[in-house]
Amino acid sequence: MAKKKPLILVTNDDGITAPGIRALIEVMNTLGDVCVVAPDSPQSGMGHAITINDTLYCDKIQVHKDEQQQEYSCSGTPVDCVKLAVNEILKRKPDLCVSGINHGSNSSINVIYSGTMSAAVEAGTQGIPSIGFSLLDYSLDANFEPVKKYVKQIAEECLKNSMPKGVVLNVNFPKASAKELKGIKVCRQANAHWIENFDKRTNPLGREYYWLTGEFVNEDKGEDTDEWALANNYVSVVPVQFDLTAHHAIQDINSWEL
Amino acid sequence: MAKKKPLILVTNDDGITAPGIRALIEVMNTLGDVCVVAPDSPQSGMGHAITINDTLYCDKIQVHKDEQQQEYSCSGTPVDCVKLAVNEILKRKPDLCVSGINHGSNSSINVIYSGTMSAAVEAGTQGIPSIGFSLLDYSLDANFEPVKKYVKQIAEECLKNSMPKGVVLNVNFPKASAKELKGIKVCRQANAHWIENFDKRTNPLGREYYWLTGEFVNEDKGEDTDEWALANNYVSVVPVQFDLTAHHAIQDINSWEL
Repeated sequence: MAKKKPLILVTNDDGITAPGIRALIEVMNTLGDVCVVAPDSPQSGMGHAITINDTLYCDKIQVHKDEQQQEYSCSGTPVDCVKLAVNEILKRKPDLCVSGINHGSNSSINVIYSGTMSAAVEAGTQGIPSIGFSLLDYSLDANFEPVKKYVKQIAEECLKNSMPKGVVLNVNFPKASAKELKGIKVCRQANAHWIENFDKRTNPLGREYYWLTGEFVNEDKGEDTDEWALANNYVSVVPVQFDLTAHHAIQDINSWEL
Repeated sequence: MAKKKPLILVTNDDGITAPGIRALIEVMNTLGDVCVVAPDSPQSGMGHAITINDTLYCDKIQVHKDEQQQEYSCSGTPVDCVKLAVNEILKRKPDLCVSGINHGSNSSINVIYSGTMSAAVEAGTQGIPSIGFSLLDYSLDANFEPVKKYVKQIAEECLKNSMPKGVVLNVNFPKASAKELKGIKVCRQANAHWIENFDKRTNPLGREYYWLTGEFVNEDKGEDTDEWALANNYVSVVPVQFDLTAHHAIQDINSWEL
């Protein structure tokens, strides 16, 4: 008897029709049975948001004729999509969850704002091997061709090896041609942060409002970081955990007068 | 010359008029100069969401007459509030950021869904000592009296000691009387997760929709966890980090064929 094909859940945060998720679906169709449950509209910057004070809609759709995967369009956040897929739509636990390919970086501290990565983390909390993919190109016509072979390779390895417990992968691709791409590096998250510069304006009714804009500040010179890898045209792979305990700090805090 | 009073930023995710933040403001007014920047409406479950595709409003308001603190009501998420406060409203970096007191638990895996904790984490990424407070009582008329002395003690210790780098505190209070409360325990995050049970309904137009409901599953029997502490009427304090790298897993993933 032939080995059962793996069941792969695909989601993202740019919305179900974004070019990035279409590229991801194309690759996953070569690896297993694909079910897509993704937001019906862009959800960038949604972090690990969930919908608790509103209703959720989830409709079976077909984005392109003749494609083999099942697809569901959901009114909620990326995390809602994973919860709906795992607990309501899929008949069994998927063998892999992939999220993306995000249009834009989720490296370094961006991981905490990322809907793409939160979907992967949510699947991880349910015990599903899981990967978030992002390309450092925000444009809608970003070129995903050069990264497809890496997406396939990393997903295959993830299906073959067992993912360490409590870990999901955060994969970022530099904006580079196939020739420029140098390979894959397993990294740690660079220690960086954002400094915001709010753009203050006045609306037609005379009320002041802001646009959030910011500057990414990386003070981490380490060559073992995702930022270093990406700046040097490597694909960065960071193992990410959702036990947020700073175990090393427990002793420190215990020395306080509490 | 008298020592300068500390500047304390207060925010939350239940909205600026929630009883929990009013209790927190009351305590912080005894410790320093308080500035409140909080959402104008409930933002529970917003995780680390930020507002990038929409405008932000932020208005100076006074919720109760005769109160000494400055207050700003913001149309965005808890993380937006911290970014606006630090980069636009405050003249200098605050000495402490406190978020809450949340109506409901943010212990264990709930930390990743929590707007309360995301606000604290955001302040942490900006190098501000930071604490999220939550009470295990979802009701609007939850009794915050018994926990005020602990809020004060933990905030005072946070101002006195230096917070370990890259760490913020996740403080949860059991729903208990002053007499029942046994003291404070520094803990690790219990290894738990949610199993969702979607409540499927049909709207008046005949379209199916869902409500997200779930069951919290804690399989972690450890007596060093926040869940154990809370179940035994202790205040739990978990040091939380925002370097999400699973450092222990880097070697594992390096053994894959990447």
